[in-house]
Amino acid sequence: MTDHINSSNSTPSPLTTNPFDDDKFHDECGVFGVFNTPEASTHSVLGLHSLQHRGQEAAGIVSFDKGQFFSYKSLGHVADNFNTQPVIESLPGNSAIGHVRYSTSGGAGLRNVQPLFADLASGGFAVAHNGNLTNALTLRRQLVDKGAIFQSTSDSEVVIHLIATSTYLNLQDKFIDAMRRIEGAFAFVALSEDCLIGARDPLGVRPLVLGLLNDESYIFASETCALDIIGAEYVRDVEPGEVVTITKKGLNSVKPFPEQSARPCIFEHVYFSRPDSLTGGTSVYKVRKNIGRELAKECKLNADLVVPVPDSGVPAAIGYAQEAGIPFELGIIRNHYVGRTFIEPSDTIRHLGVKLKHNANRGELDGKIVVLVDDSIVRGTTSVKIVDMVRQAGAKEVHMYIASPPTTDPCYYGVDTPDKDKLLASNMTIDEMATHIGADSLKFISIDGLYRAVGEKGRDKACPQYCDACFSGEYPTPLTDNNASDDDKQFSLLTDSRA
Amino acid sequence: MTDHINSSNSTPSPLTTNPFDDDKFHDECGVFGVFNTPEASTHSVLGLHSLQHRGQEAAGIVSFDKGQFFSYKSLGHVADNFNTQPVIESLPGNSAIGHVRYSTSGGAGLRNVQPLFADLASGGFAVAHNGNLTNALTLRRQLVDKGAIFQSTSDSEVVIHLIATSTYLNLQDKFIDAMRRIEGAFAFVALSEDCLIGARDPLGVRPLVLGLLNDESYIFASETCALDIIGAEYVRDVEPGEVVTITKKGLNSVKPFPEQSARPCIFEHVYFSRPDSLTGGTSVYKVRKNIGRELAKECKLNADLVVPVPDSGVPAAIGYAQEAGIPFELGIIRNHYVGRTFIEPSDTIRHLGVKLKHNANRGELDGKIVVLVDDSIVRGTTSVKIVDMVRQAGAKEVHMYIASPPTTDPCYYGVDTPDKDKLLASNMTIDEMATHIGADSLKFISIDGLYRAVGEKGRDKACPQYCDACFSGEYPTPLTDNNASDDDKQFSLLTDSRA
Amino acid sequence: MTDHINSSNSTPSPLTTNPFDDDKFHDECGVFGVFNTPEASTHSVLGLHSLQHRGQEAAGIVSFDKGQFFSYKSLGHVADNFNTQPVIESLPGNSAIGHVRYSTSGGAGLRNVQPLFADLASGGFAVAHNGNLTNALTLRRQLVDKGAIFQSTSDSEVVIHLIATSTYLNLQDKFIDAMRRIEGAFAFVALSEDCLIGARDPLGVRPLVLGLLNDESYIFASETCALDIIGAEYVRDVEPGEVVTITKKGLNSVKPFPEQSARPCIFEHVYFSRPDSLTGGTSVYKVRKNIGRELAKECKLNADLVVPVPDSGVPAAIGYAQEAGIPFELGIIRNHYVGRTFIEPSDTIRHLGVKLKHNANRGELDGKIVVLVDDSIVRGTTSVKIVDMVRQAGAKEVHMYIASPPTTDPCYYGVDTPDKDKLLASNMTIDEMATHIGADSLKFISIDGLYRAVGEKGRDKACPQYCDACFSGEYPTPLTDNNASDDDKQFSLLTDSRA
Amino acid sequence: MTDHINSSNSTPSPLTTNPFDDDKFHDECGVFGVFNTPEASTHSVLGLHSLQHRGQEAAGIVSFDKGQFFSYKSLGHVADNFNTQPVIESLPGNSAIGHVRYSTSGGAGLRNVQPLFADLASGGFAVAHNGNLTNALTLRRQLVDKGAIFQSTSDSEVVIHLIATSTYLNLQDKFIDAMRRIEGAFAFVALSEDCLIGARDPLGVRPLVLGLLNDESYIFASETCALDIIGAEYVRDVEPGEVVTITKKGLNSVKPFPEQSARPCIFEHVYFSRPDSLTGGTSVYKVRKNIGRELAKECKLNADLVVPVPDSGVPAAIGYAQEAGIPFELGIIRNHYVGRTFIEPSDTIRHLGVKLKHNANRGELDGKIVVLVDDSIVRGTTSVKIVDMVRQAGAKEVHMYIASPPTTDPCYYGVDTPDKDKLLASNMTIDEMATHIGADSLKFISIDGLYRAVGEKGRDKACPQYCDACFSGEYPTPLTDNNASDDDKQFSLLTDSRA
Repeated sequence: MTDHINSSNSTPSPLTTNPFDDDKFHDECGVFGVFNTPEASTHSVLGLHSLQHRGQEAAGIVSFDKGQFFSYKSLGHVADNFNTQPVIESLPGNSAIGHVRYSTSGGAGLRNVQPLFADLASGGFAVAHNGNLTNALTLRRQLVDKGAIFQSTSDSEVVIHLIATSTYLNLQDKFIDAMRRIEGAFAFVALSEDCLIGARDPLGVRPLVLGLLNDESYIFASETCALDIIGAEYVRDVEPGEVVTITKKGLNSVKPFPEQSARPCIFEHVYFSRPDSLTGGTSVYKVRKNIGRELAKECKLNADLVVPVPDSGVPAAIGYAQEAGIPFELGIIRNHYVGRTFIEPSDTIRHLGVKLKHNANRGELDGKIVVLVDDSIVRGTTSVKIVDMVRQAGAKEVHMYIASPPTTDPCYYGVDTPDKDKLLASNMTIDEMATHIGADSLKFISIDGLYRAVGEKGRDKACPQYCDACFSGEYPTPLTDNNASDDDKQFSLLTDSRA
Repeated sequence: MTDHINSSNSTPSPLTTNPFDDDKFHDECGVFGVFNTPEASTHSVLGLHSLQHRGQEAAGIVSFDKGQFFSYKSLGHVADNFNTQPVIESLPGNSAIGHVRYSTSGGAGLRNVQPLFADLASGGFAVAHNGNLTNALTLRRQLVDKGAIFQSTSDSEVVIHLIATSTYLNLQDKFIDAMRRIEGAFAFVALSEDCLIGARDPLGVRPLVLGLLNDESYIFASETCALDIIGAEYVRDVEPGEVVTITKKGLNSVKPFPEQSARPCIFEHVYFSRPDSLTGGTSVYKVRKNIGRELAKECKLNADLVVPVPDSGVPAAIGYAQEAGIPFELGIIRNHYVGRTFIEPSDTIRHLGVKLKHNANRGELDGKIVVLVDDSIVRGTTSVKIVDMVRQAGAKEVHMYIASPPTTDPCYYGVDTPDKDKLLASNMTIDEMATHIGADSLKFISIDGLYRAVGEKGRDKACPQYCDACFSGEYPTPLTDNNASDDDKQFSLLTDSRA
Repeated sequence: MTDHINSSNSTPSPLTTNPFDDDKFHDECGVFGVFNTPEASTHSVLGLHSLQHRGQEAAGIVSFDKGQFFSYKSLGHVADNFNTQPVIESLPGNSAIGHVRYSTSGGAGLRNVQPLFADLASGGFAVAHNGNLTNALTLRRQLVDKGAIFQSTSDSEVVIHLIATSTYLNLQDKFIDAMRRIEGAFAFVALSEDCLIGARDPLGVRPLVLGLLNDESYIFASETCALDIIGAEYVRDVEPGEVVTITKKGLNSVKPFPEQSARPCIFEHVYFSRPDSLTGGTSVYKVRKNIGRELAKECKLNADLVVPVPDSGVPAAIGYAQEAGIPFELGIIRNHYVGRTFIEPSDTIRHLGVKLKHNANRGELDGKIVVLVDDSIVRGTTSVKIVDMVRQAGAKEVHMYIASPPTTDPCYYGVDTPDKDKLLASNMTIDEMATHIGADSLKFISIDGLYRAVGEKGRDKACPQYCDACFSGEYPTPLTDNNASDDDKQFSLLTDSRA
Repeated sequence: MTDHINSSNSTPSPLTTNPFDDDKFHDECGVFGVFNTPEASTHSVLGLHSLQHRGQEAAGIVSFDKGQFFSYKSLGHVADNFNTQPVIESLPGNSAIGHVRYSTSGGAGLRNVQPLFADLASGGFAVAHNGNLTNALTLRRQLVDKGAIFQSTSDSEVVIHLIATSTYLNLQDKFIDAMRRIEGAFAFVALSEDCLIGARDPLGVRPLVLGLLNDESYIFASETCALDIIGAEYVRDVEPGEVVTITKKGLNSVKPFPEQSARPCIFEHVYFSRPDSLTGGTSVYKVRKNIGRELAKECKLNADLVVPVPDSGVPAAIGYAQEAGIPFELGIIRNHYVGRTFIEPSDTIRHLGVKLKHNANRGELDGKIVVLVDDSIVRGTTSVKIVDMVRQAGAKEVHMYIASPPTTDPCYYGVDTPDKDKLLASNMTIDEMATHIGADSLKFISIDGLYRAVGEKGRDKACPQYCDACFSGEYPTPLTDNNASDDDKQFSLLTDSRA
């Protein structure tokens, strides 16, 4: 069902744009769940706040108390919309799950905000999902043919219907039954009347960690930074293909899938995760510095200074500077007050080279050979402007060094990426790219260098240790829906007028 | 699913109240549908505006254009929320249906706002419903057991699921299949890709009329005033038990139910319908004046003036005054600017007898014997204050005459009524009521008098010509859900925190 | 000063219009003040609510407590914006004044909302004004030349500056000094640290009454209905040219102006005042009925029924019907849910004769000779549509009878009127007007008839008992500003962008 | 005048707080002005956006076009409230001035938002002010005694009234007359019909620079970063005591004050200015790195790593690390999504050490000797938490090094500082402070070291080259108002209820 929501976060006018729009891949979601603690919703708010970088469009929490579930959802940031006592009081109980969401199409409305909830025959059930199902449309069509009515255009709703129509008897079995029918990458946190479930796809593409608060309350979260904020202890990662169920009796773990080699997303190390999180037990900040160090080993240059493209390029730039023995300087200053959109400048103004988000630190750059370090290049739109800005500020040479291999292929696993034909690296050689962005040279870390930075000896070509499809085009799961006809790709016949 | 909607119509603080709260039965909905006209959504906006008295909480429209459905819903009044070009443009196409809604529980949120929509295997389908299903919970439980997931707590959603899971092949048959399984009172307007359907329950409890615009566009509406506003012609009432389907080929009518005597709601004449509407082809204003005339015949009094309780008592008061030959005067003046709620007055202020909505016209009342005419007494809360106000203004005697029989029983057919124990007439004799409200005398029209006013010779006790359950306690359908246990009466385990 | 206010009452889009726009004169303000009562702001809210018909655009209250003044202002209706505990609590103290405002230009913003406040050398001072100064621009220019800085474009601010720069020593004398310099029509309620002042212009054009609550708290209000709502007793009218000062010691009255014959506004009887108010001690409802009776004596007709144009025509129609012995019927039904604006109908829709606000009660009109009774005709825009609607509903003859003389001249005394060239009666003979509005006949009460209805023997041509400039063009004060050049008529060089 | 503004930026509930509240001095304003360019308001929006760090509470712009001034003001950030075409279009013309504002008391409402505007006898006049007048109350009292009426509680309004009542003939002379009567620190940008004025106090405490766009449009701005964003060239600083007037004929400069040694604010270098701005022609980033270097020379330590307290400590930390030869690491990660307030955590939660804004990067800190570098310590509230967080993350030793001398005294020159008794350094020795914040050691740069970092040989005690009153208690101007009685310090008798 696709109703029109009168949201208080008004859509900006179509006249607006962000001339420095964010040329990045974007993780689409973060999830959180907590069981058996008196302030479950407050913990969820804090946890989601620390996962805000994984999804800024909307957030939602469902809690459970005395036989009832309670839901609150809002467009916008957690700190702006879940920061009042009435909101917290509307979410009573000792267990809760939450979700932050990045919208691919920019405003798909409140009906797609998770956690999703359903009154099943076995009781209430809420679920929050990070990832993407690659056979969601195919399953949806089958379910509709049997009379299922969908209320969102979210792929996650398929899971709810698979559970609702499963013929297994108990809820955990219904859930596993549903997980066996879906394909793709997923990390789920789910809440029923008496249990909290955390589950991860067989390849472990999307992350999910297990934490413990005060030795008595288990927590699931996309990243460890959500444990830190509430003072919880990091226990371990939920393993690929593992379904962990928390009840009053404690923790129960099953692995209902055939054994497979894990393929966690390597881009979590490059950009998605917060630098203070641990992924697979390793500090993301350290890995990023390692990438910078590997890059310095692969691409030496007699430069005057190393300048990060703020903020995501900073750790790799520090690593590069330390390895290369070149001074690290903030040659580009970021304006912290940029909104998501701004007036579309008239041609006159645009011509002036509007610098809404960054400004060159002219005093450091003038007359210098500069190594710019960025985490990745997607469409290249920002790189063109950054290189030009640094050059206008007087830099003698501008070299762009990238802390990931060329991103040649889109992601189908819960990451917002442009189509392949919009990816610069899929259309140009590296030399052409250098010319395009105006850099004196352009270097990318090698894929083996990236694997070394994460602690491997190099990429195992026969059986890669990570999902690196965005660099390699090797997708570790079938892409069932992708082969459907364009017509069939329509999720709903109802167009949400404000979407 | 019961998410929390960030609506722009903020809920008033719990500190507020309306000391003159509206002591009336309330019709819960109005419906409208139009087919084959270039400005379908504008016509729907106008039609719903004219039906606003049937539901003030929320409104919604679904239109169809070029293979797609479009939906816009809003809390609040039609004239305040559907009055901009962007809203109209978000609802393109030549066919549309709409709904206005009165919320029984005061703010059940946007998710219950109709029309409901579903992507069925056979295509998109939207439905708007006026009435109430008396076996909705029972059916819902059966559907959930089979895996259906409900998105609202509205009884109307049951119909969508019955259609979705019907094994009949074409849509009209699925619709009829669903109608055969539901009990209660209902008038439906539904829209699919190629047809507009209007249907009325076998007893015809809730009204539905058929209109024609420019000899080419059929219209369904709850009342004829919705035809007047767009200049459409009144064709006829949809008949009890009739399913009328409009396609490009024209009108098709079937009557899929066993023949039964009709039992339209007699209270539509007393209060619900607008005085300028026709019900069953008769002017509501004329019927209300007739009630006043019958009342004057039954209850003569040598009074100085007849004063209506504004605004609903006016036509009956005019009829009474004309029949009795007593002057009709506006002895009570209504403030047109009253909002729905107001500050809760402190005891000091309350003591002063706050008159937010009405004021006595002292100059007319002082020293007079006054007949007050009102349409009905529900809890009696307003009557107490009105009688006191008139007396404080100097009236020598205050007689309260009511243009309906005592309302002793609640309605289960889509009308918002208090429980039986809150109905004054179900707890007191008429003399006790007179004492309670402080009137010198209290008279109700007899039930036969009411039947005479609508053109009958009197009530046919064996087979009453109308549904008059609120006066007689004789319900014309089974009340299946009513016999369920209280626990089973919960529609959803998810509590909407703002509801 | 003309800043742009980010008001929550968003301006409707320029695409909207109200096809049945209100063809009336509009009183521009209502004032209220109370002294020495513990719930001064609650009383003010209630008082202003009952005066809402005198100004719907905005409202404001200033209270005084323990050496401090407190202010709350809002666009929109009192019942919608002053109905919460936090608002009431933000206005503490035992004395308060308030104001409701009708904006002539439709949204002049919060900075013009009264009461105005100033920190004078002698202490804080707040004032609320109903009326219009006809030499405000002239005085403003003189004050600015001496260094005064104006913050609003309101004529009322002139009074504050006159007081601030007066060389008299005590506040009451400064106030009287200021009043002696202004021309026009005015009723002031003002509040200082230790007194409440009510004052009325020497001619008494605008009304102001004195009330008493619980024998201890004096009240000023524009109309008696504001006394009724809080249970206060009507003491007397403030007299023309009287300045009444309330302190803890009681009431003090002075008349600082040369004696003149009073000229209260006669249109208060015709339309502005609420029918339940007393003006000059007489019931407005009775006067309006008298007008109807006089009209019936002057303009007899063998009609079938008398139909009021709702709601303002009702009392005169009742009077007409009673005098003429013709049945009074609600031949036109008003939709109570009309907002202030609505979608601009496309030509197609407009053609259908959109009836957003009224609908003909066809059953009563068909085949009948109808006398329509309205209070006045200004531009005639509504009359054209009403007559056509009644005729379309089948009326055999439609006669329009007006309960005031032709309005040939604009008002400069605090009433929103169109320019003279927009007034139908100033451009056409009555016969031409009848043709223009499509009526079979058009009748206006004579000016002597109107004077008889208010209790005079007729109009005293040498010295009229009322201000009737809108009917006669005889303005009782000089129109100083009106003779200024157009260029000089600009109040401020700052254009409020949303105004 | 102190009316209540219905702002769309709703005040957060009193239940909320920011546990990591920002323990900094805050510059209170930024100003911008542009003359003779077709997109004056767009340039002003961009300029104010780049000055947002100087004031986040509110922003305003006044433009001039064809004899009229236009104003738009809003609470909140520039990028969120001036980013639509309608706002830009509401500010037409070729000249404009703007202002961003930091509110000391947190929400003083729209009436204090600048630019201020007045209709003077000589025409319209708008002014924007950065700084604070130390004799504003004294002047205000004198002006009120003569009949002036103030509309704000802003000290800046005094200037408008001094201009309005000046007996000089032309506007520039009136302006200079006013400047000669005020005391304190100020940078003004003012706009009349035919000129743009930039003026700086005789000591040059607050900054103001002159820029040139396209060789034809002069610009005034608080910092050079506002020139960079629109591609304008930096011409020079407006000199202390200089009044620069731009007309169509070009630039005119006068210095109407007695010659004095300049005393620009040294804290602009430490914290207020953006690192990419030039102050006095020197790069702020370089100065901050110099401070870090001087600090390293003064306070050597054999540490494992240098960690900045983000973001303001970063440049000094880089300088320190480079000088000391110790690795620079991001040991504290900042959450970029922190709103201004958050739920007040219950005791349970607070106990957990909520980290809404920062998180320790445990992997870098564990077992290390850490030098934390911050720009200043005000109350010490944040320092306590930061040190604890770093220690909890496993640091062996935590040393806090501060890039400014101890802040012992409040600022009266347009900077928001706590009272002296709230300043940690005014109540404790440095050793006591170290114990209080829990650091193993605490070091501040010496005041001479700070002067060396800005290029001096040291502080000239006889005649300091900068205003360093916050470190020295030596105020370069009289503090006239400060000596007034507390009672006299009340700016207005009207309390703004929402402030």
